[in-house]
Amino acid sequence: MEAKVSIIMGSMSDWPVMEKAAQFFEEMQIPFEVHALSAHRTPAQVEQFAKNASAKGIRVIIAAAGMAAHLPGVIASMTSLPVIGVPIKSSFDGLDALLAIVQMPPGIPVATVGVNGALNSAILAGQILSVADSELSKNMDVYKENLKKKVIQSNEELKQVSFKYKTN
Amino acid sequence: MEAKVSIIMGSMSDWPVMEKAAQFFEEMQIPFEVHALSAHRTPAQVEQFAKNASAKGIRVIIAAAGMAAHLPGVIASMTSLPVIGVPIKSSFDGLDALLAIVQMPPGIPVATVGVNGALNSAILAGQILSVADSELSKNMDVYKENLKKKVIQSNEELKQVSFKYKTN
Amino acid sequence: MEAKVSIIMGSMSDWPVMEKAAQFFEEMQIPFEVHALSAHRTPAQVEQFAKNASAKGIRVIIAAAGMAAHLPGVIASMTSLPVIGVPIKSSFDGLDALLAIVQMPPGIPVATVGVNGALNSAILAGQILSVADSELSKNMDVYKENLKKKVIQSNEELKQVSFKYKTN
Amino acid sequence: MEAKVSIIMGSMSDWPVMEKAAQFFEEMQIPFEVHALSAHRTPAQVEQFAKNASAKGIRVIIAAAGMAAHLPGVIASMTSLPVIGVPIKSSFDGLDALLAIVQMPPGIPVATVGVNGALNSAILAGQILSVADSELSKNMDVYKENLKKKVIQSNEELKQVSFKYKTN
Amino acid sequence: MEAKVSIIMGSMSDWPVMEKAAQFFEEMQIPFEVHALSAHRTPAQVEQFAKNASAKGIRVIIAAAGMAAHLPGVIASMTSLPVIGVPIKSSFDGLDALLAIVQMPPGIPVATVGVNGALNSAILAGQILSVADSELSKNMDVYKENLKKKVIQSNEELKQVSFKYKTN
Amino acid sequence: MEAKVSIIMGSMSDWPVMEKAAQFFEEMQIPFEVHALSAHRTPAQVEQFAKNASAKGIRVIIAAAGMAAHLPGVIASMTSLPVIGVPIKSSFDGLDALLAIVQMPPGIPVATVGVNGALNSAILAGQILSVADSELSKNMDVYKENLKKKVIQSNEELKQVSFKYKTN
Amino acid sequence: MEAKVSIIMGSMSDWPVMEKAAQFFEEMQIPFEVHALSAHRTPAQVEQFAKNASAKGIRVIIAAAGMAAHLPGVIASMTSLPVIGVPIKSSFDGLDALLAIVQMPPGIPVATVGVNGALNSAILAGQILSVADSELSKNMDVYKENLKKKVIQSNEELKQVSFKYKTN
Amino acid sequence: MEAKVSIIMGSMSDWPVMEKAAQFFEEMQIPFEVHALSAHRTPAQVEQFAKNASAKGIRVIIAAAGMAAHLPGVIASMTSLPVIGVPIKSSFDGLDALLAIVQMPPGIPVATVGVNGALNSAILAGQILSVADSELSKNMDVYKENLKKKVIQSNEELKQVSFKYKTN
Repeated sequence: MEAKVSIIMGSMSDWPVMEKAAQFFEEMQIPFEVHALSAHRTPAQVEQFAKNASAKGIRVIIAAAGMAAHLPGVIASMTSLPVIGVPIKSSFDGLDALLAIVQMPPGIPVATVGVNGALNSAILAGQILSVADSELSKNMDVYKENLKKKVIQSNEELKQVSFKYKTN
Repeated sequence: MEAKVSIIMGSMSDWPVMEKAAQFFEEMQIPFEVHALSAHRTPAQVEQFAKNASAKGIRVIIAAAGMAAHLPGVIASMTSLPVIGVPIKSSFDGLDALLAIVQMPPGIPVATVGVNGALNSAILAGQILSVADSELSKNMDVYKENLKKKVIQSNEELKQVSFKYKTN
Repeated sequence: MEAKVSIIMGSMSDWPVMEKAAQFFEEMQIPFEVHALSAHRTPAQVEQFAKNASAKGIRVIIAAAGMAAHLPGVIASMTSLPVIGVPIKSSFDGLDALLAIVQMPPGIPVATVGVNGALNSAILAGQILSVADSELSKNMDVYKENLKKKVIQSNEELKQVSFKYKTN
Repeated sequence: MEAKVSIIMGSMSDWPVMEKAAQFFEEMQIPFEVHALSAHRTPAQVEQFAKNASAKGIRVIIAAAGMAAHLPGVIASMTSLPVIGVPIKSSFDGLDALLAIVQMPPGIPVATVGVNGALNSAILAGQILSVADSELSKNMDVYKENLKKKVIQSNEELKQVSFKYKTN
Repeated sequence: MEAKVSIIMGSMSDWPVMEKAAQFFEEMQIPFEVHALSAHRTPAQVEQFAKNASAKGIRVIIAAAGMAAHLPGVIASMTSLPVIGVPIKSSFDGLDALLAIVQMPPGIPVATVGVNGALNSAILAGQILSVADSELSKNMDVYKENLKKKVIQSNEELKQVSFKYKTN
Repeated sequence: MEAKVSIIMGSMSDWPVMEKAAQFFEEMQIPFEVHALSAHRTPAQVEQFAKNASAKGIRVIIAAAGMAAHLPGVIASMTSLPVIGVPIKSSFDGLDALLAIVQMPPGIPVATVGVNGALNSAILAGQILSVADSELSKNMDVYKENLKKKVIQSNEELKQVSFKYKTN
Repeated sequence: MEAKVSIIMGSMSDWPVMEKAAQFFEEMQIPFEVHALSAHRTPAQVEQFAKNASAKGIRVIIAAAGMAAHLPGVIASMTSLPVIGVPIKSSFDGLDALLAIVQMPPGIPVATVGVNGALNSAILAGQILSVADSELSKNMDVYKENLKKKVIQSNEELKQVSFKYKTN
Repeated sequence: MEAKVSIIMGSMSDWPVMEKAAQFFEEMQIPFEVHALSAHRTPAQVEQFAKNASAKGIRVIIAAAGMAAHLPGVIASMTSLPVIGVPIKSSFDGLDALLAIVQMPPGIPVATVGVNGALNSAILAGQILSVADSELSKNMDVYKENLKKKVIQSNEELKQVSFKYKTN
């Protein structure tokens, strides 16, 4: 089984956040790999990873980093695969990481999701893979339908909330 | 010829920014369509577009909007296609649009690029389509190579800059 | 008894904040309803709610949401009833939600209150209903008078604070 | 003819922005009045205005101010009428005015619209008056319909934009 | 004994912060008074206070408030006494209160200190009173000298910190 | 004639802003002096000024600076006179200067006014001097009365603004 | 043994953060000294320190401060030695300290590191000393190599993380 | 003549800002080189430059970049030379570039100067080189002395500013 998605983190401390992406890939049966690689401390390893990813069969890369979060952009500079960036919150409520990831110069985009948005990065990866995989596409629709059901169920619970002037 | 990418703008005033996305698709020979649809003023039209996009053959949607920029998220809520969001600068240097696009709740991601990042939204769309199109993938590599050449050429020009203590 | 105000939340997790609005309506004997509806996960339900609200007798809608808070604006796009938006704090101290609610484009206003401002959203709804309900208007005046009394009472308590150079 | 809406500005320099509210009331045939009153330079006049507004027949107050924008909150503290606040941009892109208007303490809400949101403040006033005026309510629906038509027309214009790979 | 300084708070919840100002006045033997008055909930009481303060012998007013902090500016609009504003932190790290206090329009200044800067507001009041009170002026110099001694003592303690390569 | 107020600027480029303070002192017949002294480029001159100011008869110091605006705080650290800080806008809309002036540590306050608030700094200085000068105090009241008249006159002008549905 | 680096803190409360700089100098066998000196409370001591540092053999100064953090800039104004500034987080997530340190006017630079960046300030000092010390230069390379090893080891640990669809 | 300082820019559009650094090196007779290299478009060239810089005789690197400014950090990750980062203003007043440069993770510092701080980056480089070059150190002192003279001269000019109540 060959990984189609790589989850790359700038530091092991990002794993508790990024684990939700891995869980999504499990649920959707999408083969993936996980690496801790730092744009600043292991630039050679990052380069080696980025340049070989496409040939290994990787189709989408998820890169998570905090503070002056260079990892997603550095990887995007070394591959033509779509790179999804996840800003990790560690200072300034994650604003530094968000700006350092999303404000890429013309030519090298990073598909940025919200601060600590691990689950959304995985769903986005699933949507991208669906472009070439109609079965996955159907699974993504089912996943979305289930999200809806949870909200509808919440709404039902609210009907139990009891007030005198509250109506149903 | 069937469009593979839709460029949706919240207002015609976004066209001077978004035109760069259209130019990229021309250059890369990627069929595309353009619409002005407002999440707030034409919600029914937005819904109709979003629900039919996949069946029409659209594979990626680019949605651009300013201020309280709901368009990308609203479209993403109605389709499983990947949606790329472009924050348009009109107030607060575009920070309001950026946060209103990127900070999506878990379940409904928008692949956000930088403020006024029309070109990057198109390149990202090209990278996503490349997942299922090896010829386009090669063209994307060539495009990236050309970007590099321009920087290298700039560097050559700098050698002409003349100072007494400047070396080459 | 027909509800005059709807409280709509993007998620059940907003209820502990929004409960204060419900309590105000109880106190003022204003019939209301509560729903959990997500602009992004249940767009069809949101549309159905927004389009039928006026015919059901609803006169004011309160919509609360966090992060890229689209719910108030999406509802406002589908009804001519006044929509009050409550930014819920979950990231960036609620700044993302505030900007995503208040910075609506020309044509579709949302009457925005402060971050987590559930009580103020309910008071504002009461003021709007008072435009056509002189008895409620009197009750609103009494409510305001009671707020004043609490501050005056605090001031009395301060007189008990004892310092040598403090005078009364 | 008795005014139903008051437009209050902190300074005559706000008039070029707020004129759009007056134009909306003209178009919708809603009687209104305009005053320049400063919370800081003419506090007595502000108080006299706020306390008499309801008795004069005013049903909604629009208050616009920039910088440390106290005017909307000060008026709201002296009347039970709904007060709509318009942050005027003069420094910090209007963020100071926005926060000084929207972040009201519990008990005294101000219905805040976006920075320089004069038109939206007037539409919101129209929606509030519609609660007790079914004819106006219909006019508001027509107004909204017209907004939609303009966007749809823009979309038609986009079809004329000519590119080789652009489809319709 | 007649109070020379008034400490006014928007809410009793500000007292734990503002108590430090009272302690400073005790230490410096400056007669003072404390009131809880809300610009929004008790506007009449605020007006009465502000208009009578000078005649009562008050020479400086300290006003503390959070969120859309109007209290200092409202008081400043009704007296010619110097008004010191203390932004209280309750949301946005106190940025809303800071901007709502410091960004006063031309004509009505508020002497603003840092967020939760109760002690500094009291020292500033002491410096202002010193303009007309040479004995107090000397006490202020002594107070400043004592601050210096505490820092010098800290520095001495650092000499005890033991490292191999640390020198003295 | 001995100066009672010193206006200190970090750079001659601040003079067009600070000139308004000088004009106020002219109008109010308050003797003043003006200096360009940089906390960073002329620290010795700043120290000499600050230490001698009180003995020369100066009663209040106004210090204006932009960017990492240290001048007001540095002067405040070397004198017990009240120091008024004026943040000058040159980057980040003046937010850097505002925070660098207002956020002083406990013990050394700076009485901060709004960004580019030269006039307000002068009025505040006038209010402080009034604590010991009853004639100036009366002049300050007259000045405030004149501000009010200008707003009232603006309001009269608004009555000339002609609309069909506008009332007076 | 003569100190080559001075660590100066605005307050003893900064020591738990700055201790990491001291530990780095221990590890790298670089002689250093530590002082608590306040730009605002002990300006004379700061001046004495700054003017004598070079003659004492100090080659680099690290200055840490929070809030309106003037210490690094004030020291830089009094010496030609390179000064490294460390913004200490105490309010606004450290943004006030960061801007007050980094935004120095032309002529007097401060080499600023990230908020609470004590370790990085020490590494930067080591890099600066390495310009004239080839042995230290080699140690710095070794230090950097060790950082890399830790990241590589983290990556190995990730291989143990077990999922069904996770590949290695 | 061998360059001791490298000025690296992310784009030729940064040259008008960075030219001031080159002019400083000319004035101080410090040999330097200039390159345009993009972290994102020419990662291989950046790597080659960074890895060879020390061996070529470079002692300090100045790297300037805007938006998601990765260039300084990427270079710092590949060399042990001190790297000075210059945030270039292009969006968000340069806040994105500032945070993307200064907020480096532990281990890889970048010595950051203010937004568009080209001159300060060069002065800082001069100060670093002075650690091992006593003649340059003297020149740096002279440069600083000249800055002082300009401020003192400005102050003299202010004495010519004529007002009735202005004293000298």
